[in-house]
Amino acid sequence: MDSPVALVALLHGPDRPGLVAKTSGWIFENGGNILHADQHRDTELGVFFQRIEWEARPGALAAERARFQQFAETLSMHARVATSAHRPRVVLFVSKFDHCFHDLILRWKAGEYACDIAAILSNHIDLAAAARSYGLAFHHIPVASGNKAASEARQLELLRSLDTELVILARYMQVLSADFLQKLGRPVINIHHSFLPAFAGGRPYHQAHARGVKLIGATAHYATAVLDDGPIIQQDVARVTHRHDVNDLVRKGRDLEKMVLAQAVRWHLETRVLAYGNKTVVFD
Amino acid sequence: MDSPVALVALLHGPDRPGLVAKTSGWIFENGGNILHADQHRDTELGVFFQRIEWEARPGALAAERARFQQFAETLSMHARVATSAHRPRVVLFVSKFDHCFHDLILRWKAGEYACDIAAILSNHIDLAAAARSYGLAFHHIPVASGNKAASEARQLELLRSLDTELVILARYMQVLSADFLQKLGRPVINIHHSFLPAFAGGRPYHQAHARGVKLIGATAHYATAVLDDGPIIQQDVARVTHRHDVNDLVRKGRDLEKMVLAQAVRWHLETRVLAYGNKTVVFD
Amino acid sequence: MDSPVALVALLHGPDRPGLVAKTSGWIFENGGNILHADQHRDTELGVFFQRIEWEARPGALAAERARFQQFAETLSMHARVATSAHRPRVVLFVSKFDHCFHDLILRWKAGEYACDIAAILSNHIDLAAAARSYGLAFHHIPVASGNKAASEARQLELLRSLDTELVILARYMQVLSADFLQKLGRPVINIHHSFLPAFAGGRPYHQAHARGVKLIGATAHYATAVLDDGPIIQQDVARVTHRHDVNDLVRKGRDLEKMVLAQAVRWHLETRVLAYGNKTVVFD
Amino acid sequence: MDSPVALVALLHGPDRPGLVAKTSGWIFENGGNILHADQHRDTELGVFFQRIEWEARPGALAAERARFQQFAETLSMHARVATSAHRPRVVLFVSKFDHCFHDLILRWKAGEYACDIAAILSNHIDLAAAARSYGLAFHHIPVASGNKAASEARQLELLRSLDTELVILARYMQVLSADFLQKLGRPVINIHHSFLPAFAGGRPYHQAHARGVKLIGATAHYATAVLDDGPIIQQDVARVTHRHDVNDLVRKGRDLEKMVLAQAVRWHLETRVLAYGNKTVVFD
Repeated sequence: MDSPVALVALLHGPDRPGLVAKTSGWIFENGGNILHADQHRDTELGVFFQRIEWEARPGALAAERARFQQFAETLSMHARVATSAHRPRVVLFVSKFDHCFHDLILRWKAGEYACDIAAILSNHIDLAAAARSYGLAFHHIPVASGNKAASEARQLELLRSLDTELVILARYMQVLSADFLQKLGRPVINIHHSFLPAFAGGRPYHQAHARGVKLIGATAHYATAVLDDGPIIQQDVARVTHRHDVNDLVRKGRDLEKMVLAQAVRWHLETRVLAYGNKTVVFD
Repeated sequence: MDSPVALVALLHGPDRPGLVAKTSGWIFENGGNILHADQHRDTELGVFFQRIEWEARPGALAAERARFQQFAETLSMHARVATSAHRPRVVLFVSKFDHCFHDLILRWKAGEYACDIAAILSNHIDLAAAARSYGLAFHHIPVASGNKAASEARQLELLRSLDTELVILARYMQVLSADFLQKLGRPVINIHHSFLPAFAGGRPYHQAHARGVKLIGATAHYATAVLDDGPIIQQDVARVTHRHDVNDLVRKGRDLEKMVLAQAVRWHLETRVLAYGNKTVVFD
Repeated sequence: MDSPVALVALLHGPDRPGLVAKTSGWIFENGGNILHADQHRDTELGVFFQRIEWEARPGALAAERARFQQFAETLSMHARVATSAHRPRVVLFVSKFDHCFHDLILRWKAGEYACDIAAILSNHIDLAAAARSYGLAFHHIPVASGNKAASEARQLELLRSLDTELVILARYMQVLSADFLQKLGRPVINIHHSFLPAFAGGRPYHQAHARGVKLIGATAHYATAVLDDGPIIQQDVARVTHRHDVNDLVRKGRDLEKMVLAQAVRWHLETRVLAYGNKTVVFD
Repeated sequence: MDSPVALVALLHGPDRPGLVAKTSGWIFENGGNILHADQHRDTELGVFFQRIEWEARPGALAAERARFQQFAETLSMHARVATSAHRPRVVLFVSKFDHCFHDLILRWKAGEYACDIAAILSNHIDLAAAARSYGLAFHHIPVASGNKAASEARQLELLRSLDTELVILARYMQVLSADFLQKLGRPVINIHHSFLPAFAGGRPYHQAHARGVKLIGATAHYATAVLDDGPIIQQDVARVTHRHDVNDLVRKGRDLEKMVLAQAVRWHLETRVLAYGNKTVVFD
């Protein structure tokens, strides 16, 4: 998978005949070599979705990107085009739990993620030393009750100053306000420790234990104004029995949360996830 | 698994030291040979659960069963004791969907279930020929709107006349009333085509598709007065993507429903399921 | 999935720039509407693979199919083109085990497979009545030791007279000779009751039990001259423990075998499987 | 699961009536309170296996342990008895791959494992800094070709000086000799990056890719004199497709290896694994 990728486009728009031929034809005529192409039609909504990845002429990526976007507009398609030359700047939000934090950073250090970790941001100081031992900047912005708006303003200022392109909530234990998300205007990936829509809200493992379910789950989704209701990117489950108490669920859940969040982040960074409405198309 | 099993007891009651020693001691002193024994403690509730299976002296099963139950009472334990000599009488409720019906009957014919199928009962006639081709009695009791109480009365009468010990709702599309369940006084296993508690109620695959989940599920549970809220026996999930429309979910879900219901029925018939509160202990 | 599909092509050949653009361009210029298109490159071998599905002008399917095949040749590509108007003729080989047999036939009756079941062929008579109760022709061709060549000659004659396009070995307990497969010249799908390449050959559940594995598997593959070595279409596993004896493995394995074979047959009939070398590309 | 555990015994020996009653009776009569008890019979071999966990009188653990072992001998049973007061001393062998290393150490730091990490031992120096950043001793014992016996002698000396009770091969890339294992006389857990017995030996992901399997696996087992043939403790698999090249298999495999090894180590440390012949009984 470490091919010399150049450009990846995610397109969507009203479905009509010829879209596959037109996009692939444009790339071919412009001297590009298609590496991967994947399409989807939502026949209920009449929407066409495409992910297309091609090698372009060296030295002209920015121009080609702009020209492709103009071309997509002539097809009434929205296009997001990423270049492999660019490494998105990512900020991780954490609180006290460190399993998703370590997992993501170790994957990043192992070369699994083509991004820069711009900073770790937390409402607690517990993970400051760990972040710094990885050579990462750590910012502590406490969130006192009654104080959230002020904290969010500081968070926004920091994220902007860092040119943040993606925020990952790695078991960050505060709810981000709709206002914050709207002002940020960048994708925010959250990991919720249940199989949504079951057990939204607080203490999902306690809820799951009380209900006596035989599987527990974890869900990675884009954060939206409605809590735990954003477009789902990835989910997985693990089997539990009557022998597992809440502590066991929490422990088993940590592995689920790590795997599910890691996969969602990978797909996002590889420009494979297209959110529309409250759903996602994942071109994997 | 085809050992010469004789007696299986499911016990539960207040936890206290010595219970394992006392039950196993009683069996040993009475000349029994323990084949399997499994225990569980709910430390929050202070309840002890046990499943114990032993070979008893031939010819005296009924007496031994009664004596064991009396013994369990001296420990303040409730005991349900089954003998391998007895094949429970089971009635299947079906409507028009036939996948769980065929699956259960073929497993039964293959010798997977130590029970007798006393009859097939349906609110429609669609599966009459299929039931009879298997050599099974088929009873048609329609349920017209406004007529449910009368239908349930007929159902009850039939179930009693057949000495029914277990009812399986194999995609039976009517809700049974709390009154019916109370009067029946026998376990009723239902298969719900979602990962409960997500998507309870009607058209769960449509709900799942609308929410954009990445896994669909099925749940087998004991029916109780509250719809889709009874003790869960078994659950499983299957992966879906944006490519799957509602019809695909329905198709993939059929396999889930078959597997989950088949497993729940197997565990119930092997006297492995102990329901307490709205949960189950499954000694598998 | 019940879209008005018309033509599906599976292509493969030497990779070179422009293939996606050329195939989609050809279809667009010929008035077709692409419904799905999926590509794969084997960068080690330099081979391009594509599955492309499109609606063509009514009444001219055969001609369009021929013209597309000619076009593919101009790209040095091998193309297999199926039309949704055609239902392949399938023959099932069975012996005494009936679980895969019932499972496939019930799926077929439920409309999951767009094919015709031309006949059931067996070296035993055990499933004759079951086949006929489904309204299917049953042919008994015994295979005595020392007699295999003669039996295979009769099988071949029958398969040819039935215009057979696919053979499914639904737990058929005889090995087909290389000579038979070569003369037949049609795909043969087999289900092997292990996770290949582990436990090839006879009594795989006994082998698995003796080795103490913690998962058992099943593998659907195209039969080739080398036993249990053909291109794998689908595999799955189920968890087992020390508590499961060989009989339990056999029982749990039945469910695996049914699911794995059913999925492989579905993919094959939907023209999603392209075998090359001893591997498959499955466009799912 | 953080009950005040005192003693855990793993027993096995010739099966005969009354064993459950006798062991539980002994504990009860000696004032112990059984927390968990689980049994298994291998009916083919006529062997009885039991794991029993009980709270004993404070201050007398060592004596009770010895007395229980004597008691077990009177039943012709071999007994291994662990006390929760004792944290086994563990040494990790690593080479250059660090994913299992980080995973195990982070779980240990999170409190998942009741053991002491006595040291990290490696034939390379790559992980020296990482080990020391965790506050762990790191020993470098190179293994040159033709030099293995000398290296193993140094390893043995170190392991003995550290009172090592368990060795974990966390992707250690050297084969340990039969002589080393025999002299060590302590359990050694290895993680092999395939679904054994498929793809034993070197480069299993390359083997899996060449065979075109649809699932890759990982296997944790006790190391024995025969390479990749020891008793299997845990296995798991992950789905792959034709799209995954060898690098993808390696990447996906890392997650499998971490999860499978972590689970095997947990079970071993909780005194849940009883090896006999080339199999294990895992009381989970």
